[in-house]
Amino acid sequence: MPALPRSPQKQERALPSSEAAIETVLRTQQEAWNRHDLDAFMAGYWNSPDLTFFSGANERNGWLATLDRYRATYASPGHEMGKLDFSALRIEMLGTDAAFVRGSWHLTMPDGKTPHGLFTLVFRKFPEGWRIVHDHTSAAE
Amino acid sequence: MPALPRSPQKQERALPSSEAAIETVLRTQQEAWNRHDLDAFMAGYWNSPDLTFFSGANERNGWLATLDRYRATYASPGHEMGKLDFSALRIEMLGTDAAFVRGSWHLTMPDGKTPHGLFTLVFRKFPEGWRIVHDHTSAAE
Repeated sequence: MPALPRSPQKQERALPSSEAAIETVLRTQQEAWNRHDLDAFMAGYWNSPDLTFFSGANERNGWLATLDRYRATYASPGHEMGKLDFSALRIEMLGTDAAFVRGSWHLTMPDGKTPHGLFTLVFRKFPEGWRIVHDHTSAAE
Repeated sequence: MPALPRSPQKQERALPSSEAAIETVLRTQQEAWNRHDLDAFMAGYWNSPDLTFFSGANERNGWLATLDRYRATYASPGHEMGKLDFSALRIEMLGTDAAFVRGSWHLTMPDGKTPHGLFTLVFRKFPEGWRIVHDHTSAAE
């Protein structure tokens, strides 16, 4: 996906910069994951007990429960984080301070397995920047 | 989930009526499913090639592809629609014409099986009413 323009020149409307800011959150997450820095990865999520994370039939409520799920699945003994790629990102603004993102995730694990699937993210804009307030992730069955 | 107030008395802000309208779309879908009326169920979705439906690692693009997926899974020979319940609906407004809904789905099939899981829906308001523009559904593994 090509980088969105960031030049200081006048833009016709504000939306492209919001979309670029959201894409930066996701690219920063991908880079954090790929240097196995789960704390930096988690910075893309709203640090709130109201964050929600859906996968399969499981719901995690809150930033800490989401971190615990990532730790248990990818960063505990016997688990690996692998190499993460996001692709087919489609960022759609839903207002001045809300957006949702459709995309695909793909992991390449040290043992050669390639878990992959889709995600839907809802973003809201906070004083500190755009953060994921809801993540729904699913995997190939 | 108790019905939201619909009385004609003055309301302090417009949001509750949007939330009630969205809940009505979902309750109408549930009732249509349970009388095995897939066409009426599909009326809750944006009738557009830009509708998206995510499940597992599969993406369907457009209203027709979404209908085809429901037909193949639930309304073709050897398949049943069963009885559908939505629960734990959480409707969150994201602007005057956008919202997202978190919830659980549960099917009771004639053979006693009970497939179930979670969904995330993005709604937008059109001249004809609130419609689902994106559905991400996942099931217990």
